[in-house]
Amino acid sequence: MDVFKNFRMGHGFCKRLETLAIEETIPYLERALYDEIDGAEKSHAIENFRLAAEMNETGECRGTFYGMVFQDSDVAKWLEAAAYSLYQKPDARLHQRVRDVVALIERAQQKDGYLNTYFTVKEPGGRFSNLREAHELYCAGHMMEAAVALWECTGDTQLLDIMRRMADMMVLHFQGENSDAFPGHPEVELALYRLYQATGETQYRDLALQFINARGTSDFYQKELDKDGVVIWSKTVGNPAYSQAHKPVREQTDAVGHAVRAVYLYAAMADLAGETGDASLLAACKTLWQSITRRRLYITGGIGSSAKDEAFTVDYDLPNDTAYAETCAAIGLIFFARRMLELETGGQYADTMELALYNGVTAGVALDGKSFFYVNPLEAIQGVAGDTINHSHVRTQRAQWFACACCPPNAARLFTSLGRYAWGVSEDTLYSHLYIAGELNCLDTHGMRVALETEYPVGDTLQYRIVQADSDRDMTLAVRIPAWSQQTAVLINGETTDSVLTNGYVYLRSLRSGDTVTVKLDMRPRRMYPSWKIAADSGRVAFMRGPLVYCAEGVDNQGDVLNLSVSPKAEVEMLADDCIGDVPKLRVAGFRAADTNALYSAKPPQWTDAGITLIPYFAWANRGVSDMRCFLPERG
Amino acid sequence: MDVFKNFRMGHGFCKRLETLAIEETIPYLERALYDEIDGAEKSHAIENFRLAAEMNETGECRGTFYGMVFQDSDVAKWLEAAAYSLYQKPDARLHQRVRDVVALIERAQQKDGYLNTYFTVKEPGGRFSNLREAHELYCAGHMMEAAVALWECTGDTQLLDIMRRMADMMVLHFQGENSDAFPGHPEVELALYRLYQATGETQYRDLALQFINARGTSDFYQKELDKDGVVIWSKTVGNPAYSQAHKPVREQTDAVGHAVRAVYLYAAMADLAGETGDASLLAACKTLWQSITRRRLYITGGIGSSAKDEAFTVDYDLPNDTAYAETCAAIGLIFFARRMLELETGGQYADTMELALYNGVTAGVALDGKSFFYVNPLEAIQGVAGDTINHSHVRTQRAQWFACACCPPNAARLFTSLGRYAWGVSEDTLYSHLYIAGELNCLDTHGMRVALETEYPVGDTLQYRIVQADSDRDMTLAVRIPAWSQQTAVLINGETTDSVLTNGYVYLRSLRSGDTVTVKLDMRPRRMYPSWKIAADSGRVAFMRGPLVYCAEGVDNQGDVLNLSVSPKAEVEMLADDCIGDVPKLRVAGFRAADTNALYSAKPPQWTDAGITLIPYFAWANRGVSDMRCFLPERG
Repeated sequence: MDVFKNFRMGHGFCKRLETLAIEETIPYLERALYDEIDGAEKSHAIENFRLAAEMNETGECRGTFYGMVFQDSDVAKWLEAAAYSLYQKPDARLHQRVRDVVALIERAQQKDGYLNTYFTVKEPGGRFSNLREAHELYCAGHMMEAAVALWECTGDTQLLDIMRRMADMMVLHFQGENSDAFPGHPEVELALYRLYQATGETQYRDLALQFINARGTSDFYQKELDKDGVVIWSKTVGNPAYSQAHKPVREQTDAVGHAVRAVYLYAAMADLAGETGDASLLAACKTLWQSITRRRLYITGGIGSSAKDEAFTVDYDLPNDTAYAETCAAIGLIFFARRMLELETGGQYADTMELALYNGVTAGVALDGKSFFYVNPLEAIQGVAGDTINHSHVRTQRAQWFACACCPPNAARLFTSLGRYAWGVSEDTLYSHLYIAGELNCLDTHGMRVALETEYPVGDTLQYRIVQADSDRDMTLAVRIPAWSQQTAVLINGETTDSVLTNGYVYLRSLRSGDTVTVKLDMRPRRMYPSWKIAADSGRVAFMRGPLVYCAEGVDNQGDVLNLSVSPKAEVEMLADDCIGDVPKLRVAGFRAADTNALYSAKPPQWTDAGITLIPYFAWANRGVSDMRCFLPERG
Repeated sequence: MDVFKNFRMGHGFCKRLETLAIEETIPYLERALYDEIDGAEKSHAIENFRLAAEMNETGECRGTFYGMVFQDSDVAKWLEAAAYSLYQKPDARLHQRVRDVVALIERAQQKDGYLNTYFTVKEPGGRFSNLREAHELYCAGHMMEAAVALWECTGDTQLLDIMRRMADMMVLHFQGENSDAFPGHPEVELALYRLYQATGETQYRDLALQFINARGTSDFYQKELDKDGVVIWSKTVGNPAYSQAHKPVREQTDAVGHAVRAVYLYAAMADLAGETGDASLLAACKTLWQSITRRRLYITGGIGSSAKDEAFTVDYDLPNDTAYAETCAAIGLIFFARRMLELETGGQYADTMELALYNGVTAGVALDGKSFFYVNPLEAIQGVAGDTINHSHVRTQRAQWFACACCPPNAARLFTSLGRYAWGVSEDTLYSHLYIAGELNCLDTHGMRVALETEYPVGDTLQYRIVQADSDRDMTLAVRIPAWSQQTAVLINGETTDSVLTNGYVYLRSLRSGDTVTVKLDMRPRRMYPSWKIAADSGRVAFMRGPLVYCAEGVDNQGDVLNLSVSPKAEVEMLADDCIGDVPKLRVAGFRAADTNALYSAKPPQWTDAGITLIPYFAWANRGVSDMRCFLPERG
């Protein structure tokens, strides 16, 4: 069950994210899609729909498609975010604007249900001829997600009807000789599953499963290339692992290729594993989860270490300065984690989900919500970041907008639907996965209503209150205890309890209206030691407090960070009164190396004692250009 | 004065290199050029000359050009190396083979003197139309160097005559409207200067200077592109800094672009600065020297940190695992350094020349002389090196041959002419730059003959003996004292002397026949601390002994190197009886981290004491595939 609509957020860290999305990002995106922002890269996304409508209505159009071939998806993600925004905070103007866009989309839809502005405007004969590269199923998937969200949040069915027609024509098309097809960029699979959940139409679920099952089982990409009349951009199929098509999904053991594609695919695989009970599909999901989280994950929750292909590489290849770690990939990891939590209760899934949310994703958005990182390095040095061939993808400052604008609307749709990730519900248990202040109301369905008060991730205390519990139901409250919390106290109505930790959760049973559950987490700042197999990190440590990764920025440390080493045994102090992004900084004793002219010297550097100030990683690059580093060397 | 022919090498480290070149590399290259090696990449270089000859003689040819557009230069570099080889060790068979090749080259030369097989065979109308990319002046330059070497070493003038005709036609061509031209890949400039030194023809020197002066002063590359009938491979001129054409050479302050191009250009600039006394050209050379050696140099003497463009990037951007550090670039740095030494005496030039020779260059050739590295990383980890997109250029084992075969013949021509780098001669002084055992005989020209006995770089003692000194000349022996030698003893006839160190050299005057000069260098192994500005190295140290950089290889260290940390204060011990490449290994106390499953953990690693074995960097990858690392973390 999706508890998104049952949750109302209170104040705190996540409320800030939701508010930024509603008040800044979504309105900004709207203006961007309409090309109303001076100085930003042109989007043309709405204009593409206008042209497609004109083409439908007159057989020709004045103007041509502009932008990425997946430009439609920017509109879709904005619509999905806008839907959540309307639910969180009704807004008649926005609702009208959404309706206008949906009406335009309907005009852009072809008679047989086909919807894609690139192919309608620019390559009318080429539809479904280059699934590997053309992203039309990707765009359709995002529009399906938007359609379901709009229907859930506003009751509007117009887009849902549009996308049902598109899905229906897809079901017709992808049978018989086309049943070996699958898209280059997974997304439609999880979207079709969502559409099936919303409509009950099993053929959508079946098509999702068909795409998943077909993937990597044939030379479909080559077959596409060899066909007459195909729209071709690349002359070869390249490396099929780039799009996880190198082998059948059930035989895939390593997370490879384009990271966003990977986690979108794995999310859909998890959906379908749950739906079908297919043990081999579930096993593949678990294996791929472990591949990511045990060997290919940045400490920030970022994934995809290579800028080339925006891709996973090999185990333990996690460079800090050239990291790609795309914001969208961390978001996709959250999607995957959330679905794994539906399949089995496991603290590891929620721990990773939280790690990605508070670090790798949140760093993608400026504190004021107005600029965005696509790429999230763990080290950025002026003169290097952005300035060498190998660092050309790295920015030291967030950009207003991108030619490829996938990340900002992706963050917006996540931040406006966090209840879905905070809570999980089974027949007899409410699972508190993330600690987001607010209230979960499942009275109608489960006979329980729970409020959570907390200052987390700044404060260490979670205060659950059973607002109401129907006495004829015996609901259990399961609270995740993060693996990093070494000493955790759990109290019921102020009394300690001997609740047992099972798979990362404590289960609190027989709660009654008015009962309180207090969880006190161990949020002492901690030093994090990387595996020695991560070459980039050897001899270095990172710092965390709770779910937050910290980093050193030059602005707090006399300008430079590369000259800093931390003292191995020093306590890490929290600077309760010195906050950034409403989160306290940390301080640890260390050393600063003196400047020297020698590139290499037999003379050791001259060290002076230095108090090193650390800020939460999500807040870096919010005070002008400054060097930044997460992993700092230890000096004995 | 070029003292190459005055020097006869004795036994020792460099003799091994010379012997490998003569006995292994040069014969191997010969077979490669003739396509006689099974399983190696086809060269076709000799065949290209045959086709060009056929084209000249009949107006058509059966077959077509194959290989890089600069394939001719492989033949040229082999000829140059063969010339030196013939001087070091006469060999009638090789000499005949050389004569055969030269005769073939003459047949491939067009009537007007033009020589280039690519344009003769494949693009007859395109000569000199794409200097930016076509490498025809680069090929001509290498052939000029070969011609001069053959004449110097064997007295043969046939190739010299051929290349004089080519140079003459170039002088005619590159005047008037073509006087703004300059080649994309510098090389012909230093070659024309060498040809001028051999022939006394000042127009060759003047053309070299013209190319240097024209470089970066106009939009010549664009002009070339815009012309009709041009042979075009790239549609745009790209980044002119790639070929050091972004500004006039006298205004260049940072070493940028393709590293081999850069140092070949700077070497020619130094030649011409010395020839003309042009202070602004000399100043540019010094500035560029400092840019390299103070901010853009690997500790191994490698240069060019980026695989993309094989190029310099920015100051202090010196990654270890993705280093390019091409063997040819380190060789080119030696060329540049040697020429700077002609301009001013300075230990820094010879120190760097020696660093590159004993590390960055020598590592390019296997201990058996039969396989070669193009790329010389300072860290290579199995499963990463060669296996990720960013490490695709890195190899863990040397290859037999390359499609682009520039490095092996370049090393061969260097190793067979080391006398040129070991000694320098001015009117009144013999300079001992490198300590290569052997004898310098300048009796005819300078009235002095000096022998050097030494086990350097294994032994620490240099034993100079004045074999003969004419009493009517007052020659000085100047011996470089490396900057790394903290305590150096200099004795004349066994007695200490109070000789003063001036610019890195001690000057020993009034030596007579039979006198000995003994220099005892401080060759205690030393820990090398990188500048804190080199992000990749922070918290890590390297080890050197004398001019040799050391590294840890898995094969000596229980398989892994990433789990090793060195103890900051531990003495480094020399393992006199445990050698590789005839050089003792080192050992230093340190720690080995235990294996762990956690990617990141709040628990510190479990460390056990470990004696870490280090081998000289030049000898890595000679015992099968093994992880390797130069910079090791220190753990207090």
